[in-house]
Amino acid sequence: MRIGRVLIVGTGLIGASVGLALKGRELSGEVVGWDRNAGELETALRIGALDRAARDPIEAVRAADLVVLATPVLAILDWMERLSPILGPEQAVTDVGSTKGEIAVQAERLFGGAERAVFLPGHPMAGKESGGAARANPELFVGAAWLFTPVRRGVAAGSETAGLETIWRECVTAFGARVMDMDPGRHDEVCAWVSHLPQMVATALAAVLEEEFGEAPELKSIGGRALREMTRLGASPFSMWRDVAHTNTVAIGRTLLAVEQRLGAMREELRGPGLREAFEAANLFRKQRYRDSDG
Amino acid sequence: MRIGRVLIVGTGLIGASVGLALKGRELSGEVVGWDRNAGELETALRIGALDRAARDPIEAVRAADLVVLATPVLAILDWMERLSPILGPEQAVTDVGSTKGEIAVQAERLFGGAERAVFLPGHPMAGKESGGAARANPELFVGAAWLFTPVRRGVAAGSETAGLETIWRECVTAFGARVMDMDPGRHDEVCAWVSHLPQMVATALAAVLEEEFGEAPELKSIGGRALREMTRLGASPFSMWRDVAHTNTVAIGRTLLAVEQRLGAMREELRGPGLREAFEAANLFRKQRYRDSDG
Repeated sequence: MRIGRVLIVGTGLIGASVGLALKGRELSGEVVGWDRNAGELETALRIGALDRAARDPIEAVRAADLVVLATPVLAILDWMERLSPILGPEQAVTDVGSTKGEIAVQAERLFGGAERAVFLPGHPMAGKESGGAARANPELFVGAAWLFTPVRRGVAAGSETAGLETIWRECVTAFGARVMDMDPGRHDEVCAWVSHLPQMVATALAAVLEEEFGEAPELKSIGGRALREMTRLGASPFSMWRDVAHTNTVAIGRTLLAVEQRLGAMREELRGPGLREAFEAANLFRKQRYRDSDG
Repeated sequence: MRIGRVLIVGTGLIGASVGLALKGRELSGEVVGWDRNAGELETALRIGALDRAARDPIEAVRAADLVVLATPVLAILDWMERLSPILGPEQAVTDVGSTKGEIAVQAERLFGGAERAVFLPGHPMAGKESGGAARANPELFVGAAWLFTPVRRGVAAGSETAGLETIWRECVTAFGARVMDMDPGRHDEVCAWVSHLPQMVATALAAVLEEEFGEAPELKSIGGRALREMTRLGASPFSMWRDVAHTNTVAIGRTLLAVEQRLGAMREELRGPGLREAFEAANLFRKQRYRDSDG
């Protein structure tokens, strides 16, 4: 047992998976959960991701050693505002939000002082296109990167909260994730390319296919693995990605423009060198990064 | 046993998989193969996809009951020119090319007469991003659509070749594929959307990532399933897709433009209704077509 009481705010896919991973590995004395959606909270409790459901989140916050914010990003920012005045220096907060720039700035502003709880911004590079506690899995984080963007603290942190920060990193490692520290700005830039862009591309592809085919039955019976796989992320919920787009707009916009331009160049040169050049670059990308040729 | 001697021209992934499927199900008296690449031919022989390798393809063509053209599309068109004068009305030819418009036109011109072999244009909706006989699999076609775009014949076909056409359809069904007949133009239009577009999008995505990150190590360690899956087709060989782009240029260009425009609209409205609209259409696409939410 490494932490006393953990409160998970937001018991959807990631929150409930964190609960399962904590409980399965006996890393915490008690795992308490809260979700504004009563059904999600009940599901998380039923699958064993929580020891108990909190009735009043603020009361549960006061009683927790570590609070894990596992909601979409804009709700995380709201929770940070609410929690900052009621948490003390012996407590710690972390989050699992997909963008880190705004969260890091707010963490420094609201949690920077010595009298405050420590806040460690985090981001597990794991998920599924369809969320919800029902799909939670304690092994979700195995082999995934878990990125942290630590905040500068104005005053030296108390040993207790610095300890909690270390312990949370140990928990995440025990989940099977690979811990990496990054600058928040660099995090958001890199994630725009490796996570947000693939999502937007899948959404665009699925959306044009929906627009083109509507109810036509042909697509389903003809499309193979390529179609299924390239549109899988099309099932991702807008509620989560709206927050990502809101908090990483410039970086995502740049990546979208790059793909638009590349597609345009390929289109204008479907019989010319532009197509070959794109295939060669794409081949190189896969060869250098994914030696397992079946992806 | 349903066919006497089958000659497979092009013993790469699809050709060798056809060989394995024929032999594993004992559908053919003898499976002979030829490939201009001696290594591919040897591999196909070694894995048991062929009973023997032909030394002279033209000689083997003369001795075959059914010829399966399993090369890229432009090479299929070349083979059709070469085979037409040397095949007789008791023989049949089919192909597995990814586009059907030009092949169907040429089939009608070269194979339309009563004194000619029958030509049945076909297209299994199966494949892998990395080809080659070494990755062949007799189960590759299980559950996949196998599209045919039958050619009008000027004169009533002889009963023998009509028989071979029927038998090949039975073989394909025995492979586990679902046979569907389509108009060649409609085939190329639908395949532009469900197959060629996903390929071009994956290639574009992998190419911009290669351009952006080059040798930078971050990407590999941070990127998760979304990145891996959305770029998997980036490994596909230009040699095959060049022929697809050459023979379906207009339709593919139209699909690329649709995605460019959709991405542009999303980019301009990352904080507006355009993003929501795209997600809603994409969600609908997945919901209607892939109830298995893990895709």
